[in-house]
Amino acid sequence: MRPLPEILDRIAETLALSEDRGQVASYIPELAAVDPRQFGIAVALPDGTVHSAGDATVPFSIQSVSKVFTLALALGRLGDSLWTRVGREPSGQPFNSILQLEVEQGRPRNPFINAGAIVVTDAILAGHAPRELLGEVLRFVRTAAGQDESQGLIRINEAVARSEAETGHRNMALAHFIAAHGNLQNPVEKVLGCYFHQCAIEMSCIELARAGLFLTNAPGAPRLVSPSRVRRIGAIMMTCGHYDASGDFAYRVGLPGKSGVGGGILAVAPGRAAIAVWSPGLNARGNSKLGTEAMEMLARATGWSVFG
Amino acid sequence: MRPLPEILDRIAETLALSEDRGQVASYIPELAAVDPRQFGIAVALPDGTVHSAGDATVPFSIQSVSKVFTLALALGRLGDSLWTRVGREPSGQPFNSILQLEVEQGRPRNPFINAGAIVVTDAILAGHAPRELLGEVLRFVRTAAGQDESQGLIRINEAVARSEAETGHRNMALAHFIAAHGNLQNPVEKVLGCYFHQCAIEMSCIELARAGLFLTNAPGAPRLVSPSRVRRIGAIMMTCGHYDASGDFAYRVGLPGKSGVGGGILAVAPGRAAIAVWSPGLNARGNSKLGTEAMEMLARATGWSVFG
Amino acid sequence: MRPLPEILDRIAETLALSEDRGQVASYIPELAAVDPRQFGIAVALPDGTVHSAGDATVPFSIQSVSKVFTLALALGRLGDSLWTRVGREPSGQPFNSILQLEVEQGRPRNPFINAGAIVVTDAILAGHAPRELLGEVLRFVRTAAGQDESQGLIRINEAVARSEAETGHRNMALAHFIAAHGNLQNPVEKVLGCYFHQCAIEMSCIELARAGLFLTNAPGAPRLVSPSRVRRIGAIMMTCGHYDASGDFAYRVGLPGKSGVGGGILAVAPGRAAIAVWSPGLNARGNSKLGTEAMEMLARATGWSVFG
Amino acid sequence: MRPLPEILDRIAETLALSEDRGQVASYIPELAAVDPRQFGIAVALPDGTVHSAGDATVPFSIQSVSKVFTLALALGRLGDSLWTRVGREPSGQPFNSILQLEVEQGRPRNPFINAGAIVVTDAILAGHAPRELLGEVLRFVRTAAGQDESQGLIRINEAVARSEAETGHRNMALAHFIAAHGNLQNPVEKVLGCYFHQCAIEMSCIELARAGLFLTNAPGAPRLVSPSRVRRIGAIMMTCGHYDASGDFAYRVGLPGKSGVGGGILAVAPGRAAIAVWSPGLNARGNSKLGTEAMEMLARATGWSVFG
Repeated sequence: MRPLPEILDRIAETLALSEDRGQVASYIPELAAVDPRQFGIAVALPDGTVHSAGDATVPFSIQSVSKVFTLALALGRLGDSLWTRVGREPSGQPFNSILQLEVEQGRPRNPFINAGAIVVTDAILAGHAPRELLGEVLRFVRTAAGQDESQGLIRINEAVARSEAETGHRNMALAHFIAAHGNLQNPVEKVLGCYFHQCAIEMSCIELARAGLFLTNAPGAPRLVSPSRVRRIGAIMMTCGHYDASGDFAYRVGLPGKSGVGGGILAVAPGRAAIAVWSPGLNARGNSKLGTEAMEMLARATGWSVFG
Repeated sequence: MRPLPEILDRIAETLALSEDRGQVASYIPELAAVDPRQFGIAVALPDGTVHSAGDATVPFSIQSVSKVFTLALALGRLGDSLWTRVGREPSGQPFNSILQLEVEQGRPRNPFINAGAIVVTDAILAGHAPRELLGEVLRFVRTAAGQDESQGLIRINEAVARSEAETGHRNMALAHFIAAHGNLQNPVEKVLGCYFHQCAIEMSCIELARAGLFLTNAPGAPRLVSPSRVRRIGAIMMTCGHYDASGDFAYRVGLPGKSGVGGGILAVAPGRAAIAVWSPGLNARGNSKLGTEAMEMLARATGWSVFG
Repeated sequence: MRPLPEILDRIAETLALSEDRGQVASYIPELAAVDPRQFGIAVALPDGTVHSAGDATVPFSIQSVSKVFTLALALGRLGDSLWTRVGREPSGQPFNSILQLEVEQGRPRNPFINAGAIVVTDAILAGHAPRELLGEVLRFVRTAAGQDESQGLIRINEAVARSEAETGHRNMALAHFIAAHGNLQNPVEKVLGCYFHQCAIEMSCIELARAGLFLTNAPGAPRLVSPSRVRRIGAIMMTCGHYDASGDFAYRVGLPGKSGVGGGILAVAPGRAAIAVWSPGLNARGNSKLGTEAMEMLARATGWSVFG
Repeated sequence: MRPLPEILDRIAETLALSEDRGQVASYIPELAAVDPRQFGIAVALPDGTVHSAGDATVPFSIQSVSKVFTLALALGRLGDSLWTRVGREPSGQPFNSILQLEVEQGRPRNPFINAGAIVVTDAILAGHAPRELLGEVLRFVRTAAGQDESQGLIRINEAVARSEAETGHRNMALAHFIAAHGNLQNPVEKVLGCYFHQCAIEMSCIELARAGLFLTNAPGAPRLVSPSRVRRIGAIMMTCGHYDASGDFAYRVGLPGKSGVGGGILAVAPGRAAIAVWSPGLNARGNSKLGTEAMEMLARATGWSVFG
C-alpha cells in the first residue's frame, strides 16, 4: 500500500477532472447554492493523525450523516429497547419513502432512513427541551472529534435548519404518519424542530473523519459506546447507510458508511481509520457522486474492504 | 479467544438444550421429514484444518446456499455483464416475493432471492445441456471443498429435486414472470430443472465449510475467483444473504452469510475462516433458528465480526 | 312494490333487532361518544315528499359524505381542469391510505378518498378565506336541501372540527405529502382547517336525503349542476364512494352512494329518489354496518338498482 | 333521441376519420396481425332487433369479454360460494398485475382481472374434461345469442388459443402463483388450457350484442341467470370491467361494460339494450380506443347512462 497522503492526493487529482459531478440537492435554497466543484477527503487514524486532500477544511451540512451520531446516543441511552420502535433491516426504498410505513404500521424499517431517524430523535428527546437535546448532540459529536465548543468548528447552521422547517413537507408527512400510529412521544413540531437542526450540523471533512474514529473500535480511538454497540452500528451502516443504494456501496467500497444529502459520506475501516469525503453533487439515489467514487478508489488502494 | 474446538463444543452443548427450534420447512415432503433435533457446526481454516461439533458429518440439502456457488460461477463466466439482468440491492422482501419483479419489470433485486438466482442459473445455462451445467456446478463446489466425485460427499439428491419440481408453484410463477419480461434466455422448464437440482445439492457442514474457504481471500485458501470478486460476493452476502432478515444477521453476527431453507448457513470470516452450521428448524423469516444463534455465539466468542 | 313508508318501517324494525352493529369510529372523542343504537333512514322524492323511519331527525356528523358536495362545487367552479390534480379511478385501498400517493406522485386516485378530497378543498379554497369557503359549502348544501340558514338544521359542529384538527395526524400526513409534490396551492394548515370543518357538517337523514335530490337528475329536483355532471358524480360515487368496499356496495345495493365515518350514507336512485341512512356503528371497511344493510334491503324492496 | 340506426351510422362515420386509433395488442401474433382500421358496432334490443354499423359482421377475438360469460356460468353453478375464492372489488391495478395476489395471498380481487378469471375457470372446470367445459361455455354463449352450433358464427380460434399457450408467461405466472396459495383445484396446465381457449372465442359485434341481451334483465330478453344475479354481474362490470380504467369508463359512458384485449367491448343498458363495439387499437390501459369513444358517443346520444 502506498502512503496515505499520496493516495488521497491522487484521488483528489483524479476526481478534479470529473465532468459529471451529479446534481446538488435542490430542495432547500441553502444546499442548492453550494458550489458543486468542491471536493474534500480526510482520513483519521486512531493515533490522532489526520491526512486530507482537497477542500477538507471547508464546512458543509452533514445532513443524514448526523443519523449515525443520534443513533449512537439513542443506543447509549435506551439500549435495545429502541428496537421496539424502529427496525434494522434495509428498506429497499428511497430515503424519504412513506409506503413501507403504511404497510408496517408506523414502525420505520431502520434508523437511517428519514422516518427511522425521526423516531430516534423522538426517543432521545424524551424529557428534554429541544435546546438541551441539540446541545447534547453537539457535545457528543465534538467529544468524538476531540473538539470543544470554543473552537467553533462543529456547529448548527440556523439558516439551513429554518429552511428545512419551511419546505420539509415530506418529513412532516412522515412524522405525522408515525404520530398517527402512536410511535411519537413528543409533539410533531418539536421532534421535527430537533431533527431539522441535527441535520443542519456543519463541519469539515477533517472534523467529520475525527468524529467517526469512535466507530473503528481501534485501540486509541475515543470510546463513546461499547465495542459491541460499535459493531452493531457498523452493521446498520453497511446494510442501510446508503438507502436503496446500500448494496451498491457495500459492493463497490466494502466499508460501513453513511451518506447525507449535503454530499458528505462518513465511512469506517474497522480497527484502522475513519474516512470522510464531501462533494455536493449527488447521484440518482441521493448519495454524493464523487464521494462514492472517492471511497471506492480509497478502498481499492488501501485494501481496507471488510470483505477480505 | 478460547481454542476453537472448545468454543464449538460449548455452542453445540448450549444449543442442545434449546426447546424452541423453529419450524422445519414443510413445502416439500423430503425437507419436512428431516429430524429437527439435529445440529452441526464446522469451521474450516485456510491451512486446511477443520474443527466441528454436533452433527457435522450428516449431509443436508443446502438449498439456497447453492446460490453463492452459482453466483461465483456466473461472475467468473459473464463478469459484470451479469448486472444488466439482476441487481445487487437488498430487496426488503421475503425470499420468494414476486411483487418487486412487477414494479421493476422482471429484473430481480439481487442474486440471492429466488427470482435472482433463477436468472443467474439461466445466465450460466446458456449453451449447455442441464446435465452439463449441473456437472459444472458440482465440480465447482467439489473443487472448492477439495473433494473429488469418487468420494461421494457432495451430490445431488434426485428425490428432493423431483419433489421441488412437482410442488414449486411459487418458483414457477417467478420464472414465468421473468420470462414474460424477456429476462430468461432458456425455456422456463429447463431453467427451473437446473435450479431445483442445484438447490438439491447435499453435503455436510464439514464439506460446506471447506467449500466456503475460497470466499475468505486468505492466503492458502483455494482461489477460484479473483480477490476483488470474492470481496464483492461477500458484500452481497452481507446485504442480501438472509433475505429480509439480512440486516438482523449483520447486526447479530457481523459476517457475510447465506442461508438455505434446508437449515444450513454458510458464513465467512474474511482472511480467517469459513463456517457452516446446520439445524433444520427455521425462524419466521425462513432462516435456521439455531443456526443463526450459533453464528452469533461464534462471532462473539471469536471476535470475528468484520465490524471491529 | 309496497308503499315506501311501509318499506322503511319494516327496515327500521328489522334492523332494530340487530345485535352486531359494528364499531363506532373511535379516533375522535365526539364521534366515539355517539350512541350506537341509533338508526335513521329517509327517502326524498323529486316532488318534495320525504318518507322516513327511525332516528331520521337526529343530526349526525356527515364526515366524508361532504365530499360529494365539495366535488359538485369544485366541478361547477373549475370544470374538467380539476382532473389534472386528482384522478377518478377506484383506489383499491383504505380511505386514508398514503402509499398510492407515493407511487403516483401526489395525485390522489379519486376525490372521495381523503387525499383526493383534500385536493378538492384546496382547489375550491383558492382566493377565499376559509370562512368564505365554508359559508359557500354550507350555502350549497342548504340550497340543495331547500333550507335556509335561519332554520339551523344544517350546521358545522365546531367541537368536532377542532377535535379532528388536534388528532388528525393521518390527514396531516396526507396533506403534507401532497404539498411535497406541489399539488396544494394553499398552506397545509388552511386547507386542513377547511377540510376538518366541512367534514364536521351536521344534519339529519331527512335533510341529507333532501340535499341529495339534485343528484337524481329527476324532473322537479333542484338543478345545481348540469345533468351531464350529475351523471359523472354518480359514476364516481358508484366506483369510489365506499373506498375499498365500493365494489361490494355496488354488488349488494346497486346504487351510487357515499359513506362517511360518522355512520351516514347518501345514495341516489337516478330519476327517482335520494336516500339517506345513518347508524354510527361501522364495519371493517369503515362504512356504516346497518346503513349498508338498510340500503341493500331498500334496493331489493324497491327494485331501484341501476343494474336492471 | 334520434333513431338508433342514424346514431350508429353517425358514430361509425365520425370514428372513421380518427387518426389515432391506439395500438393493436402485440403479445400474440394472431392479434397483432389484425387490421387496425376496422370498426364495428351493434345494438341488440330485447325484442330481437339488432342495429349495427361498420364492420359489425366481422368476427374478432373476444378475449376478456369472455369473462362475463364464465362468471355467469360460475355463479349459476356455484352460487355465492364462488366469493370465497375471488373478491369483487376493483383492483386499481393493470389487468395482468400479480402484486396484489402476493399481498392478498392468492385470492384475486375480482373475476374480471386475469387472475380472477383463471380462478373462475378453475371453479367451473371441476369434474369436467377441458373439452366438456369449453363445450359448455360455447353452448352458453350461443344460447345467449340465440345461435346454434351449425351456424358457426361463434367458435373458438385454435390458432389464437395455441399462440397464447406458447407466449402467455404472464398468465402462467398468475396461475402458478394462485396454485402456490392453494386456490386452484385443477392442474395449472389444464386450467390455462381452458382459459386460453375461452379467450379465443370469436364472434362478430352482432353476435356479441345478442349474447349480451340476457344481462339487460329486460322483458323478452333471454333469461339465463336470475334477475338478481344479472344485477350483480352488472355491478361488477361497472366497477371492475375495464381494469384500472373502470372508473373512467363509468365516468364517460355510465354503463356496465367489459372490454377485451382483442378490441371488443360489451356494454349493457339495463332494461333497454346490449351493445357491442369492436376496434382493434387499444389505449394505454389496454381497452379499445375507438370502442370506448363509440360507447361514450352512444351513451350521450341515447341518454342510456344508468346515472340519470
